[in-house]
Amino acid sequence: MLSRRAAQLPPSSTAALDARAKQLAEDGVDVINLTGGEVDFPTPREACEGGTEAIDRGFTRYTAVAGIASLRQAVAARLARMWNAPCTAQEIIITNGAKQALANAFATLLDPGDEVIIQAPYWVSFPHMITLAGGTPVVIPTGADTGFKLTPRAVAERITPRTKALLINSPSNPTGVVYTRAQLAALADVALGADLTIVSDEIYGDLVYDGAEFTGVASLGRAIRERTVTVGGWSKTFAMTGWRVGFAAAPPPVIAAMAALQGHTTSAASSISQHAALAVLRAEPTAELRQRGIALDERRRILRDGLAALPGLRLAVEPQGAFFAFVDVSGAYGPGAHGQAIDSAATFAEQLLRTTQVAVVPGADFGAPHHIRISYVAGPETLREALKRIHDFLAAIPGSRATTAGR
Amino acid sequence: MLSRRAAQLPPSSTAALDARAKQLAEDGVDVINLTGGEVDFPTPREACEGGTEAIDRGFTRYTAVAGIASLRQAVAARLARMWNAPCTAQEIIITNGAKQALANAFATLLDPGDEVIIQAPYWVSFPHMITLAGGTPVVIPTGADTGFKLTPRAVAERITPRTKALLINSPSNPTGVVYTRAQLAALADVALGADLTIVSDEIYGDLVYDGAEFTGVASLGRAIRERTVTVGGWSKTFAMTGWRVGFAAAPPPVIAAMAALQGHTTSAASSISQHAALAVLRAEPTAELRQRGIALDERRRILRDGLAALPGLRLAVEPQGAFFAFVDVSGAYGPGAHGQAIDSAATFAEQLLRTTQVAVVPGADFGAPHHIRISYVAGPETLREALKRIHDFLAAIPGSRATTAGR
Repeated sequence: MLSRRAAQLPPSSTAALDARAKQLAEDGVDVINLTGGEVDFPTPREACEGGTEAIDRGFTRYTAVAGIASLRQAVAARLARMWNAPCTAQEIIITNGAKQALANAFATLLDPGDEVIIQAPYWVSFPHMITLAGGTPVVIPTGADTGFKLTPRAVAERITPRTKALLINSPSNPTGVVYTRAQLAALADVALGADLTIVSDEIYGDLVYDGAEFTGVASLGRAIRERTVTVGGWSKTFAMTGWRVGFAAAPPPVIAAMAALQGHTTSAASSISQHAALAVLRAEPTAELRQRGIALDERRRILRDGLAALPGLRLAVEPQGAFFAFVDVSGAYGPGAHGQAIDSAATFAEQLLRTTQVAVVPGADFGAPHHIRISYVAGPETLREALKRIHDFLAAIPGSRATTAGR
Repeated sequence: MLSRRAAQLPPSSTAALDARAKQLAEDGVDVINLTGGEVDFPTPREACEGGTEAIDRGFTRYTAVAGIASLRQAVAARLARMWNAPCTAQEIIITNGAKQALANAFATLLDPGDEVIIQAPYWVSFPHMITLAGGTPVVIPTGADTGFKLTPRAVAERITPRTKALLINSPSNPTGVVYTRAQLAALADVALGADLTIVSDEIYGDLVYDGAEFTGVASLGRAIRERTVTVGGWSKTFAMTGWRVGFAAAPPPVIAAMAALQGHTTSAASSISQHAALAVLRAEPTAELRQRGIALDERRRILRDGLAALPGLRLAVEPQGAFFAFVDVSGAYGPGAHGQAIDSAATFAEQLLRTTQVAVVPGADFGAPHHIRISYVAGPETLREALKRIHDFLAAIPGSRATTAGR
């Protein structure tokens, strides 16, 4: 019954692992779930009140497909401030989460065979979104040598007549790295020179630490902005993952096309969620967000420092954004503790979960089979406990480099 | 920048008209909006309380992509009662509205070039969903002679080696007709004989009147059910259009594939909406739903009887489900009232809106350019006022058949 496309599509492995860890917790296992893409903070009060008010007022009908006008305007106003340039509601579409904004951007931009340049490590869904839209992901591997970043030269070398778009994701999932303004400008110049569209996934744009500065690609100038689809949302900034509300910003013809597509495939985002999103944008609880940022930065440092003390694991590039650390585990390869060899991040993560109940995501589906992604979405005490369990796990591995002197 | 596919995709015309009529109303125009796909009843209290409770309890995180387990189980239990056969949660996926369930079903079933048999008049998004998935809609026109229904013979004649699926929509949008159990069984037999999959859009299944009985295609027997994707949701039954929550029921491998697709394109439906959907399913406010059904039936009769008294308009097939009447307006064609000829349902609807502020949907995008769809989603007084305005509009058309003796 299934199409070839459907038969070949694997499920989202991060979502699957998150579900498995949540199920273990429900079953009473003392699991520490560091797989997820959501922090443990609650949705801010202002958003909750906005959602409740929508329900109470009967704001429970279809909205315009592209979103309620006041919300599109509020997003445009926020971007105008960030970009220091005018932005109108016609340049904004509200989506069922940023994920839909990305998937629909590709579906709107790509004809069969069009190529999209992306980097590895990449967020798991990027290649599938491109493939589902009929395109071909052209993957450029990046490593510690470039700080897990694309270089203009690497991009230029992979451009062909079929290249349609360049995907940028800063702050990055899964590496947590943040491109500088100069780095983005150099990449954008290459894209502009080859007449590419830039799809910029900026969902983690509000989560940067340690003096790193977030740059929106569309802020780099008018010519670049005219060829850029910016994607953002409420999920990460405001801890609103379950509400499913995100946005894309792009030139009006692209937004109109994305709205047409959305109108035939899902329709508007939840009216309740849109109302909550509007309420929290209007309130912009700056002090609370700053506190959350400080808390996340503390967790980031705990994880970074803890990892540095673990032989066999290597955090080659310090994360400065989002809430992920991307860790090379190849130093822990060996015969393993239970007769099963550890020879990949997958077997490492599998044994770690089984013996210590710490859940992390192996990197194969990010295009990095020797790394694991650790989300610092849990509080300091939980993170310290996780680090202790990982330490004990490594110490119990016989014969691996992890038990010998460090690197 | 746009792909060919995106450049060719028109927006959802019903959504656009609904938005235009809502905008006119906001601008202070005394518009009567009979374009929409939603009734004017509020969301039941039980659902609202469920939504509010989710917000209050912090149930605002990602859920499993296929939906929360208890909701999938509740839908399975409801279908099991309707079908008088066991149904498990693994056969259910919760979607961002029934629209997503349909779009993703086609994306999961169709390879490029696969054909899907649909009837005209059809719901506006059906052909686009099929095309977006790479398929080809094969449209069988139906008219008053078959009561706007597909016949087994007509379907059999259009089956080719490329035919992959048959789409059934009963009760139907835009015609409001309800297939009998025998009619569905005969169609299903043809589909089964040709090894087709059936996609059954049953979103209006709870809204039937006048002794008509709704039949779920999957209830017709095990062999049929094994080849059927059933689509339903909360929007129409429970007046929850804005919440964006629907479902598909199908064999587990199809559900797993739909979940993989959804996981890479939008993720789960809103956690708040899912919780509201669960609350209203558990409460199943039967008495309230019965009252709503009685009210809709009264409106249906008012519209039917009013239309019968209007020369130039013809309701050839009485609707028995959903909340639409599909009306032939070709009897009103002529020079029009303002120097603009009325020569299509589009010009009829345009002039009707301009001169009387009654908004209806012209049928071209339903594959029926001489019909309009009138939604009886407004109360009796509003409907009577709309009928009076339409009457005056018809009376003012010079020289059209509408001003001569009716049939």
